[in-house]
Amino acid sequence: MEEKKIILTGDRPTGRLHLGHYVGSLRRRVELQESGEYDEIYILVADDQALTDNADNPGKIRDNIINVALDYLSAGLNPEKTTICIQSALPALHALTFYYMNMVTTARLSRNPTVKAEMQLRGFADEGLPAGFFTYPVSQTADITAFDATVVPVGEDQLPMLEQAREIVTRFNHTYGETLVMPKAMIPENEMQRRLPGVDGKAKMSKSLGNCIYLSDDAATVKKQVNGRMFTDPQHLRIEDPGHIEGNVVFTYLDAFSTQEDFAEFLPDYNNLEEMKEHYRRGGLGDGTCKKFLIKVLEKTLQPIREERAKWEKDIDAVYDILRQGTERAREKTDATLARVREAMRIDYFKDRTIVREWEKMLKEAKQ
Amino acid sequence: MEEKKIILTGDRPTGRLHLGHYVGSLRRRVELQESGEYDEIYILVADDQALTDNADNPGKIRDNIINVALDYLSAGLNPEKTTICIQSALPALHALTFYYMNMVTTARLSRNPTVKAEMQLRGFADEGLPAGFFTYPVSQTADITAFDATVVPVGEDQLPMLEQAREIVTRFNHTYGETLVMPKAMIPENEMQRRLPGVDGKAKMSKSLGNCIYLSDDAATVKKQVNGRMFTDPQHLRIEDPGHIEGNVVFTYLDAFSTQEDFAEFLPDYNNLEEMKEHYRRGGLGDGTCKKFLIKVLEKTLQPIREERAKWEKDIDAVYDILRQGTERAREKTDATLARVREAMRIDYFKDRTIVREWEKMLKEAKQ
Repeated sequence: MEEKKIILTGDRPTGRLHLGHYVGSLRRRVELQESGEYDEIYILVADDQALTDNADNPGKIRDNIINVALDYLSAGLNPEKTTICIQSALPALHALTFYYMNMVTTARLSRNPTVKAEMQLRGFADEGLPAGFFTYPVSQTADITAFDATVVPVGEDQLPMLEQAREIVTRFNHTYGETLVMPKAMIPENEMQRRLPGVDGKAKMSKSLGNCIYLSDDAATVKKQVNGRMFTDPQHLRIEDPGHIEGNVVFTYLDAFSTQEDFAEFLPDYNNLEEMKEHYRRGGLGDGTCKKFLIKVLEKTLQPIREERAKWEKDIDAVYDILRQGTERAREKTDATLARVREAMRIDYFKDRTIVREWEKMLKEAKQ
Repeated sequence: MEEKKIILTGDRPTGRLHLGHYVGSLRRRVELQESGEYDEIYILVADDQALTDNADNPGKIRDNIINVALDYLSAGLNPEKTTICIQSALPALHALTFYYMNMVTTARLSRNPTVKAEMQLRGFADEGLPAGFFTYPVSQTADITAFDATVVPVGEDQLPMLEQAREIVTRFNHTYGETLVMPKAMIPENEMQRRLPGVDGKAKMSKSLGNCIYLSDDAATVKKQVNGRMFTDPQHLRIEDPGHIEGNVVFTYLDAFSTQEDFAEFLPDYNNLEEMKEHYRRGGLGDGTCKKFLIKVLEKTLQPIREERAKWEKDIDAVYDILRQGTERAREKTDATLARVREAMRIDYFKDRTIVREWEKMLKEAKQ
């Protein structure tokens, strides 16, 4: 039997998705969905994981589930091809997390770079991390393996998480026999897909910094973020001055979004981005022109997403049904994995009466 | 509404139960069961917890489930009054463990005395503990709260575990509103119930030391263990020598088992244990006489248990049905608690369409 090609990916529903998510993962998911190369694709709305460091604010998670779902659907994820599901409604994930906890040591979990950074930041000796945060790589392993995922699209920063999952799979299969499917990471091909900076040039996009462009922003907001806040080259004071491309957010965004066709359509002075950069470097190309072009380029992506979103927003019941049905489908899938795991661990006592005959035999032998 | 009185207790199915279990908990459970003071009594066969440090030997757990169940039934636990259930078949326990992990820090878990001892023993810096072992107090909290237990009969050494459970309940109820029932420890009234030494005088009874008397041992084995292996007073060489009671296992066992009636029945030379001890102390009472009496005393307890066991062993199917039905009943109970927890956490999205109306309102407000 040839192995199925199955993708698992997902997001923590802690806010609306922004261009960083789009470039870093969402755009690619749509491509993978349309490639026809995958047998099953699952996208997990990871509310349980979001709760590991938002335990006292479940309302935030609850609210953002719909935001993330709307962003998915608007950006082109098709529920006929991609199963969108909610983590907390999949009981197999809790059970698998529970059992995988026996397959990993606390010392190993402490070596997780994210956990390590948090431990340094918060001072492990003082109060420690929430245990749920400390062990979330185990929960991620449960997510990945529950869906029999063969391919997990991740950024390079998440490779240690996938390494942890592979270790647990190895240990489990070694202990209980071949049961779990070994997942592989799929790393973005080009650097640009890895991380988009905020409009202010800061590496991290965050709501509190106000430096994001959201997929759900209206055209006026996008324009304001680019014209009013986008960081360019502070040394490029007059148009005729030479300009710098590195760290110039306008060009970083153009790297991520513009195509050759965009030039033909909106800025025919240049054949492509290289020619435009050349001109900017030697002087004579103003930031205003660049930003005007970028806004048009972004709108080419955002406009259709925005229109789709408006349609879905009129029918939240339909979105709810998509989530409910996707979660039901995911539940069947993950329950089947758990059944396999329980069988391998030989803790499926109540499946049939096999164990009664075993016990009878054992008790008889003990008497001899 | 008056609060129900609910007991939760249990054992790890890692071996047959011995006199230490009987004196430390089993005898008392039967008394509590017969007292008529409790609305519900649950006994958990904690296979999941046994797996936390027996992950590579699930067969041992599987085999011993029937041994523990037979010991329960033979010792007088009545499935009509006491629900006997299997931990791994109760999915709510996994989910609750998962969510309670957010209610406790790693630093707090490290302060658990059992975990602390293990960390020192194994060297935390080197390989660490299995994460499942490190976090098992969280899983125990899930067990206790899932059944709404108000009373947890424990030995004094388990008080820190119950303290941890109470902390998690406090934290959960503080975060999500009054949801979980606060459990109380029930400590044995007399010292004797706390811990029975092995026949060799070692504090720990263990299969590998061969120093246990099992509830399922036949009369010949019991006799052999008492006559052949039971530690008395090494300085009591001749019958006429003065003897010591402290550390003398025969008297420790008599403390735990003998009654005034036993003297009338088997050893009328004395009115009670105090008189017998007096004689032993001043000299003139031989170990042989003491052991002969002890064997009779033990047999008075063990003989009926052994007979009951023989009956049940002939109908393992019936024992299986008791476990299956008890587990089904426990599943209903624990699922109801989980439903309450999910409602409190507001992650019960798919219960009805309430959330759709909430989301519509939120999206509308965001537009304004």
